[in-house]
Amino acid sequence: MSKQQIGVIGLAVMGKNLALNIESRGFSVSVFNRSAEKTEEFLKEAEGKNVVGTYSIEEFVQSLETPRKILLMVKAGAPTDATIESLLPHLDKGDILIDGGNTLYTDTQRRNKELAESGIHFIGTGVSGGEEGALKGPSIMPGGQKEAFDLVQPILEAISAKVGGDPCCTYIGPDGAGHYVKMVHNGIEYGDMQLISEAYFILKNVLGLNAEELHEVFAEWNKGELDSYLIEITADIFTKIDEETGKPLVDVILDTAGQKGTGKWTSKSALDLGVPLPIITESVFARFISAMKEERKKASTILSGPTAKSYTGNKEELIEAVRKALYMSKICSYAQGFAQMRAASEEYNWDLKYGDIAMIFRGGCIIRAAFLQKIKDAYDKNPQLENLLLDSYFKEIVESYQGALRQILTVAIENGVPVPCFSSALSYYDSYRTETLPANLLQAQRDYFGAHTYQRVDKEGIFHTEWMQK
Amino acid sequence: MSKQQIGVIGLAVMGKNLALNIESRGFSVSVFNRSAEKTEEFLKEAEGKNVVGTYSIEEFVQSLETPRKILLMVKAGAPTDATIESLLPHLDKGDILIDGGNTLYTDTQRRNKELAESGIHFIGTGVSGGEEGALKGPSIMPGGQKEAFDLVQPILEAISAKVGGDPCCTYIGPDGAGHYVKMVHNGIEYGDMQLISEAYFILKNVLGLNAEELHEVFAEWNKGELDSYLIEITADIFTKIDEETGKPLVDVILDTAGQKGTGKWTSKSALDLGVPLPIITESVFARFISAMKEERKKASTILSGPTAKSYTGNKEELIEAVRKALYMSKICSYAQGFAQMRAASEEYNWDLKYGDIAMIFRGGCIIRAAFLQKIKDAYDKNPQLENLLLDSYFKEIVESYQGALRQILTVAIENGVPVPCFSSALSYYDSYRTETLPANLLQAQRDYFGAHTYQRVDKEGIFHTEWMQK
Repeated sequence: MSKQQIGVIGLAVMGKNLALNIESRGFSVSVFNRSAEKTEEFLKEAEGKNVVGTYSIEEFVQSLETPRKILLMVKAGAPTDATIESLLPHLDKGDILIDGGNTLYTDTQRRNKELAESGIHFIGTGVSGGEEGALKGPSIMPGGQKEAFDLVQPILEAISAKVGGDPCCTYIGPDGAGHYVKMVHNGIEYGDMQLISEAYFILKNVLGLNAEELHEVFAEWNKGELDSYLIEITADIFTKIDEETGKPLVDVILDTAGQKGTGKWTSKSALDLGVPLPIITESVFARFISAMKEERKKASTILSGPTAKSYTGNKEELIEAVRKALYMSKICSYAQGFAQMRAASEEYNWDLKYGDIAMIFRGGCIIRAAFLQKIKDAYDKNPQLENLLLDSYFKEIVESYQGALRQILTVAIENGVPVPCFSSALSYYDSYRTETLPANLLQAQRDYFGAHTYQRVDKEGIFHTEWMQK
Repeated sequence: MSKQQIGVIGLAVMGKNLALNIESRGFSVSVFNRSAEKTEEFLKEAEGKNVVGTYSIEEFVQSLETPRKILLMVKAGAPTDATIESLLPHLDKGDILIDGGNTLYTDTQRRNKELAESGIHFIGTGVSGGEEGALKGPSIMPGGQKEAFDLVQPILEAISAKVGGDPCCTYIGPDGAGHYVKMVHNGIEYGDMQLISEAYFILKNVLGLNAEELHEVFAEWNKGELDSYLIEITADIFTKIDEETGKPLVDVILDTAGQKGTGKWTSKSALDLGVPLPIITESVFARFISAMKEERKKASTILSGPTAKSYTGNKEELIEAVRKALYMSKICSYAQGFAQMRAASEEYNWDLKYGDIAMIFRGGCIIRAAFLQKIKDAYDKNPQLENLLLDSYFKEIVESYQGALRQILTVAIENGVPVPCFSSALSYYDSYRTETLPANLLQAQRDYFGAHTYQRVDKEGIFHTEWMQK
């Protein structure tokens, strides 16, 4: 019996779709699932395709060409460790495990190191694009041994999304680099979604736009600088009518956001690295507040504030200002996310290629957007760019759009419309471009009560003052 | 030779001062330090006092009454574990170790559990007040076995700060509860300091107040609702003149804030608990941005924006609006910090007494303030209060001060003055009091691209829509 080119363990929707995707690109696939029924179901679904079902780990491993290439699509955390444990006795040196789950990068670092001791290669790869992306072409962010990546590159590139013929898959870096970049991708996604929600909230509450008008605004925006998957589906969402009530479906959906934790991981890593990541972090907190529905319901009957009045200025001009505010805030958010990757790359010696990362975000994944090309261009011009805002394209945009963001914030503040991420974007911009912040007072306080010392503006050194002696 | 009532290990400034404090309250003390010179130095300093120096762990342990009470004042982390390890062979069941360092609460949980298996009690206690507080009376937040606390209560209460005769020391709860509350205390301190810095920045940049005028404003504020240690020392700081330059000292201090990590721990815990903690977290990020001095210097030459113009309105009115904005933001920050303690208490079964915690914050510690009595009153009225903003006193303040906060934000936004924590406070207030947030759109997006499902406003259940089918 001939051996298969790659094996997939775990046949939940992502594993199943990736297996079908791989097969459709001309590779032979073995599959294994802990419960045999899932395997049988899948084989029925894949009838006539180049797929071999196996019913034990041993049979699965034996069915593969060496060096073996095994894609793990099991639940992140303990189930992944258990699966690796069960595979290990059957593997040979040089075999390659590929974890395609939503794994925390520190787990990937640990596994990569432990497995390397037995000569097993371990690739942790981000896979973004949801169910549909998995089947038709996701964005793929593999990290691990470069020599192992070289062996799986043809398969990963073949199954990935393509933009202008280029695969949305590139080697990210050693050990946990791939899962780290996927994590930041998800954090950026949180930020994008919250920023779009805030734009929607202003348009709805201050301008009173209905679903049809909102559809038109977002569809129009999608033709310009904001051109992206999330703006596109947002436009689309406003056209969906609820069959039961006849109302726009979005209006009958409860306003309590769920989350799977990757946004919060991104914020925690930024906190550990000492990188400011306020926009994404505010978007995580916004989800938390949204989830406190009963408490907010109660608070809304207790705490008063301005309610949005109908806007008396020019409507079209305000819509355009919201668009500019959204684009500027989005740019600030990406500037923060990419600065975080830069700090992580230095911390972990990953040598990340920021332009390449922007390129593979252009297709397949949730944050795919035309403007990622601008990020690529910026890093092509200067691979050591400290912050995207310093690049000439982004500088020009934010300088000219900041007036719109200031205007929209003022309108939101007056009307009692909460816009935590828009606010945070401007605070970041104004902080970042300010040579002298008020932290001199803060350092004076710290030295006053805790003798934490301070530096001076006029000479080198570390200083302490006995503040209480007059 | 008679035995001593308590032992202190670690004679850096905090340990030394606590030992002197304990002795001054009439307790006999043994001390030990890894390097004998420090012990000798200390004994010279403490000549004539009821202090016994020891030069080996064994001698130290043998010098103590049983059950032994040993206060560890060593560096948090591995040094604390190493010290415990060295003590263990010499201890008996029922002995009590008290960790007074700035320890992460999860370490305290672990140590408490491990030591309990050998019958050793372990108390992790927050100690706030800096060097001076340690010597004269800090705020003390002990967590661990209640029966062990009962045995050390007389000493801890005796050395703590007193407000109106009440000790600023109370039993917080089991295992890591004391260190957790100390951590949140520090997070709140970060928030307070950043809020004061933002108020200062507006007064300085928009109104052009000089150090003398700033001193007067803060001294005046300290007589009213804002009466607190941090406002008091801020007023004081503006009076200090640099001897070398003759300028106000605050003006020659470099604006790069340092940090020891407890603010970031607070944010990370909030992220894990699913509690919105945006103000404190923005204050942590503000320190990070302040530390990027060279990058900001460069950015300030590249990125333009409005520069603060001289204010043409009524100066006194604007100062009063800044005061109100500061007090309202401070209230929102404490509301978040106390909500976080509530979530932690539920998560870890600590049964925290929020009113008692507010009481022991009133003296000794850095965030001591008159308004903590209002927090105590709020929890006395309703021990199950979900959020401080829902208490009648705080509700009245924030409702009537929100206009000032909105005004100050508008002024800051127009003038290009970054105020991340003021902004975040208003976003929080407006989010919290809004029954319906825009998270319905966000849930629609998540269901669209990831089949993450949603709930409806009009009936129970979990729903999914095939969005792409028209």
